[in-house]
Amino acid sequence: MNDCIFCKIAAGDIPATALYDDGEVLAFSDINPEAPIHLLIIPRKHIPTLNDLTEVDAALIGRMHLAAKQLAAELGVADSGYRTVINCNHNAGQLVFHIHMHLLAGRELGWPPG
Amino acid sequence: MNDCIFCKIAAGDIPATALYDDGEVLAFSDINPEAPIHLLIIPRKHIPTLNDLTEVDAALIGRMHLAAKQLAAELGVADSGYRTVINCNHNAGQLVFHIHMHLLAGRELGWPPG
Repeated sequence: MNDCIFCKIAAGDIPATALYDDGEVLAFSDINPEAPIHLLIIPRKHIPTLNDLTEVDAALIGRMHLAAKQLAAELGVADSGYRTVINCNHNAGQLVFHIHMHLLAGRELGWPPG
Repeated sequence: MNDCIFCKIAAGDIPATALYDDGEVLAFSDINPEAPIHLLIIPRKHIPTLNDLTEVDAALIGRMHLAAKQLAAELGVADSGYRTVINCNHNAGQLVFHIHMHLLAGRELGWPPG
């Protein structure tokens, strides 16, 4: 966990501008944006992948989605639309093994989603 | 709600083979698959979009992800990987206004996710 870049961001050891922070969940901009709005929403708790979720984490995952809803409203894209994406392991291209949800908005997003 | 196709599937009024059903959350195959495995995971509760989520629904959204984890394990793609996607409104291409999560797996998924 000490080498986890998202844990370091959550701890403030690596600077990132939090666009949302409720103590358990925080959001910041993706450094490689793929849309006019491309945020990462993460739990402070270190959970490596979706495969590591337990019942205990259910509400926390829900809170990440409530954060997405709030951010979309604040950024003016709630009505036009947005997509949330969580990648698990190689075939999905997961690069950081601390669960994170991508929030993409600000343009029409194609289908399939990758 | 009476015209909602996913409510009808949840009620058994439209046939669909449930791959997962815990009473609150169920999963079935997408009729237009974009990957070797492409499932839809929905809550029985009619929630139109992510914009309609409330604190009450947080755990339910989490349970949808626990269902994804379980399905990925059962289908043998937990290690190779999978992607979960939720679309909200037009720019994301949401077609059915009852929250649903896409679970895609079985191939390398590209980036960006649409």
